[in-house]
Amino acid sequence: MRMKIPELSREKETLILNAAQSRFAVYGLTKVTMDEIAEDVGMGKASLYYYFPTKEDIFRGVIQREQQEFLRRMHVVVEGKSTAGKKLETYVRQRVKLASQLLNLSSLSHNSWSALKPVFKDLFNCFAEEECKVLTRIIREGKRTSEFSVAVPEKTGQLILHVLQGMRLRLIRDSGHSISKQHYEELERETFLFIDVFLHGLSQREN
Amino acid sequence: MRMKIPELSREKETLILNAAQSRFAVYGLTKVTMDEIAEDVGMGKASLYYYFPTKEDIFRGVIQREQQEFLRRMHVVVEGKSTAGKKLETYVRQRVKLASQLLNLSSLSHNSWSALKPVFKDLFNCFAEEECKVLTRIIREGKRTSEFSVAVPEKTGQLILHVLQGMRLRLIRDSGHSISKQHYEELERETFLFIDVFLHGLSQREN
Repeated sequence: MRMKIPELSREKETLILNAAQSRFAVYGLTKVTMDEIAEDVGMGKASLYYYFPTKEDIFRGVIQREQQEFLRRMHVVVEGKSTAGKKLETYVRQRVKLASQLLNLSSLSHNSWSALKPVFKDLFNCFAEEECKVLTRIIREGKRTSEFSVAVPEKTGQLILHVLQGMRLRLIRDSGHSISKQHYEELERETFLFIDVFLHGLSQREN
Repeated sequence: MRMKIPELSREKETLILNAAQSRFAVYGLTKVTMDEIAEDVGMGKASLYYYFPTKEDIFRGVIQREQQEFLRRMHVVVEGKSTAGKKLETYVRQRVKLASQLLNLSSLSHNSWSALKPVFKDLFNCFAEEECKVLTRIIREGKRTSEFSVAVPEKTGQLILHVLQGMRLRLIRDSGHSISKQHYEELERETFLFIDVFLHGLSQREN
């Protein structure tokens, strides 16, 4: 007789993803086994496999949750601001701060991370699309209130996202894939300078 | 009796680098042999080895020459402009155009290129420093003439370079290391939008 496996509860899922996240962050994806994760959450290995057929599925779950958490937090910080300019500034400043703590399981070495990335490309594309939407919405608001002088809000939203992604990538390349606290501080300062000049550039022009 | 080898003339060096450049661009670094290059320029293999002990030395020579050519051309296009704003705009616009034709032997696949890059890291760092100097000089000029409102020209020069490098890197990553003509056009448009907004952002603020 086959054992009936109950549906995965929200609580159980959280437990699994928490355990996996801690292990991945310390040991990296390759060194962590499904047995260890099952043991961490006091679950039979068979049940774990039932919910997550592969380790990559768990990893995917971890990343997805981080991305959702990121977007949720960004939504909260942005909504509290009164003008589109303040919203955009807050988004960009908080993004660079949050990204170093939260995204990509930052303790994972960037080398193993780049090797992994293609497998999760769809996740990152979806995430980029979500970020693009938020940025575009803020810029459209600024255009509507005549705070910003912008031709195509989508293009400007995309540009900002690409600049932020690019500055981070450049740093990763130049730091030889091991980013230190100092590197992050440098990235923060540079990002702050960027959004300061860029925001002024978006403001209504005289003629 | 040892044969006396004459000093490498400028003409001979140009011939060697031209031949090597064409071969590298078509076949990549690994598939080209020193014999082939020697044969292309009608030179004894021993003499070629005398001037360039390894294939990497020739490749280094090719890159270095491309970089110098790039800086020389940029100098020419920038000097013709009357204001710092026009200079900066021209630099950034021409840079993205030139980079796709000239730098990095663009026909070399970006995969093999990333593998190679660490060996030539010093070359790229020097080149980045040179670009930074040019950008900083333009921004300093704009600050002096009160065209720009800038606190530290070096920081802004570096920021612009980092943004341009980053936008390119992001494109390389997202295009799966094979950049099409369409990708380059997209990068151009985005770079033009960036410098348009950024230049306005650098302009004197009212208060």
